[in-house]
Amino acid sequence: MRIKVERRPVVVPGFQFAGVACGIKASGKKDLALVVSDVPATAVAAFTTNKVKAAPVLVGQERVKAGRLQAIVVNSGNANASTGQLGLRLALDSCALVGRTLGTDEKLVLPSSTGKIGVLPPWDKMQAGILAACGVLSSRGFWNALDGIMTTDAFPKAAIRHVTVDGKPVTVAGMAKGAGMINPNMATLLCYVLTNARVERTALRQVLDQTLAESFNAISVDGDTSTNDTVLLLANGVAGNRELRAVGKDFRTFRTAVGEVLRDLARLVVKDGEGATRVVDILVRGAQNSVEAEKVARAVAYSPLVKTAFFGGDPNWGRIACAVGYAGAAVNPNKLDISIGDVPIGRKGMSTGAINEKQAAVVMQQPEFSVTIALHLGRGSAHVVTSDLSVGYVRFNSAYST
Amino acid sequence: MRIKVERRPVVVPGFQFAGVACGIKASGKKDLALVVSDVPATAVAAFTTNKVKAAPVLVGQERVKAGRLQAIVVNSGNANASTGQLGLRLALDSCALVGRTLGTDEKLVLPSSTGKIGVLPPWDKMQAGILAACGVLSSRGFWNALDGIMTTDAFPKAAIRHVTVDGKPVTVAGMAKGAGMINPNMATLLCYVLTNARVERTALRQVLDQTLAESFNAISVDGDTSTNDTVLLLANGVAGNRELRAVGKDFRTFRTAVGEVLRDLARLVVKDGEGATRVVDILVRGAQNSVEAEKVARAVAYSPLVKTAFFGGDPNWGRIACAVGYAGAAVNPNKLDISIGDVPIGRKGMSTGAINEKQAAVVMQQPEFSVTIALHLGRGSAHVVTSDLSVGYVRFNSAYST
Repeated sequence: MRIKVERRPVVVPGFQFAGVACGIKASGKKDLALVVSDVPATAVAAFTTNKVKAAPVLVGQERVKAGRLQAIVVNSGNANASTGQLGLRLALDSCALVGRTLGTDEKLVLPSSTGKIGVLPPWDKMQAGILAACGVLSSRGFWNALDGIMTTDAFPKAAIRHVTVDGKPVTVAGMAKGAGMINPNMATLLCYVLTNARVERTALRQVLDQTLAESFNAISVDGDTSTNDTVLLLANGVAGNRELRAVGKDFRTFRTAVGEVLRDLARLVVKDGEGATRVVDILVRGAQNSVEAEKVARAVAYSPLVKTAFFGGDPNWGRIACAVGYAGAAVNPNKLDISIGDVPIGRKGMSTGAINEKQAAVVMQQPEFSVTIALHLGRGSAHVVTSDLSVGYVRFNSAYST
Repeated sequence: MRIKVERRPVVVPGFQFAGVACGIKASGKKDLALVVSDVPATAVAAFTTNKVKAAPVLVGQERVKAGRLQAIVVNSGNANASTGQLGLRLALDSCALVGRTLGTDEKLVLPSSTGKIGVLPPWDKMQAGILAACGVLSSRGFWNALDGIMTTDAFPKAAIRHVTVDGKPVTVAGMAKGAGMINPNMATLLCYVLTNARVERTALRQVLDQTLAESFNAISVDGDTSTNDTVLLLANGVAGNRELRAVGKDFRTFRTAVGEVLRDLARLVVKDGEGATRVVDILVRGAQNSVEAEKVARAVAYSPLVKTAFFGGDPNWGRIACAVGYAGAAVNPNKLDISIGDVPIGRKGMSTGAINEKQAAVVMQQPEFSVTIALHLGRGSAHVVTSDLSVGYVRFNSAYST
């Protein structure tokens, strides 16, 4: 899907940004980004659970444990994954160079990489890029940094919310790169959410866990899989509010703002599914419990046959029912209802006929629509956002060497 | 893949076959098949484990419990799935009509259907088709029956072995329909293996369980998923051998013959993957155990990104390593070796460089090649056969309403 993005100025008090081209990408596009807080920020993060982890993830996992970070250095075009000891060394050296140049503690710098796997990034270019980026840091450089983290993205992904916390104006701004995929495979997701709020660390951890569950963990890209996936939340506290703890109205206001930013970004990632032409909300109701509901939603959301039917605009009740059947959840086929938008295409396990099918096909012409699956067995529900599987996806991924 | 099939005569002593066109398929192609044994045969079967089961599967599961069957009546073009009580009635009526017409017990007739889900098959056409088929049964009708069970298959799938059991000539012949898919979704598999051997039922059960594990359960189509999947093994005993029990050389000879027939058929199903241009053997060695090895093999075999790389002829070491990493098995990234054919593309978790990559790309131009993944953690191994994911697959499945 082509999305028009308006590049309105994004400013997060106390944060500076830079994005430069240093030659890692053959295209000459920006491939090195810096995000720097004026002061050390409270930091929480979620990383890939893939057993093959990129070097910067191994470094980042260690560094975020201390709970404070001040800078993020990102290169795109090379994932620095499956690169052994040399890759680790390079990730550490990048952070050290940022620390030395900016006069901050290198242990407060987190590295990120995204792009081709299995090849060591070119250190000479990285080095020049880091020095150049340090020289152009600016509070207005948000979009430059965002350009610097993109790889196969068709458009930049940003979201912002302004709220009042303890009487102080607080900004929550996020940038992400990554494209939704047919499966939760390797769509490297990098997401940095920055706020000037002052937040106690365990409260910040709670915010990230709760909001991730409803955003990036509810789309066809989840944190389980790529070698490089990273979601980082930095709160530098320059808003001057009383430190937020995990209770009360202000906390809920802040959590909602972060949740909306992450949800917006997650939806943009699905829209940017490589070759995607449709965004589809899979809604499951009436499962025995929410775990079972999620199994059903994911089976439908991941089924290549369902996704190709979405691409073809085909209200294929049978393919959806079949995916429900193999999801591994309790299902009574004789109680199964399925709708596309508001049009019922299956009732009590049977097709509702050709007229409904035609109406549903009209709904499926829209760029976004929903599929509702009612199991009538309990109160468990789930919501997963997915995209279609298009000819463009295959073309793209058979030509691109990640 | 286009496969040239030589339609050499297939005769299984004591079996007759028919295949006719009765108008279920709009194309006018054959869509009704009959397989009839001269005498009741010992019968074992494996059916889909999908919770949404087609009507003929529900009937067949009950009928095979008695351990004896004499006829199979199959229609293609309509799956008779998600068709409620009317669908069940129709499946039973089909069997009754076969029984009445041929003068055999209707309880010894097993129904099968494959094709579009959610629409009741046209009984008037089925009825005419069954009567016509009963009138043209012939010991030389194997290929006609096989034509009658096909749907999206690009070519008919047959395999045959001749062995000697207890001094008697024994034939094992199988026919199958189904096309390998990107995922184990809904590629309805119908497979009938017929033999004139005389085999004790628990021994026949053991043969089916053991040979399925190495054939249809080791490809990207498994019995877990379609609403209609059926594998049926009938042994009518007219060879006159002493009844085979589950021990001894003759039993092993027979089991090997059935295993080879099922393996041949399974490989043909992968070759016929909708839009497939490559067949790839995924070989995993050195996992902690065979369960873990299979997890790794399946993760690689099912990864859309790996499969699009196969289509593109791209020796993408990173995508394979990534799939290994998220398989959920124990993996030490620093010990991971990956080869394409005989060419190592990854050693100890790192790329082996551009020269090897070029050699591997040459291997990938072949219609069939292997990927070997060595984990160096134990003695577990696995073998899964998969296909590539092509532009043709998506075109096909976005246009075809199953």
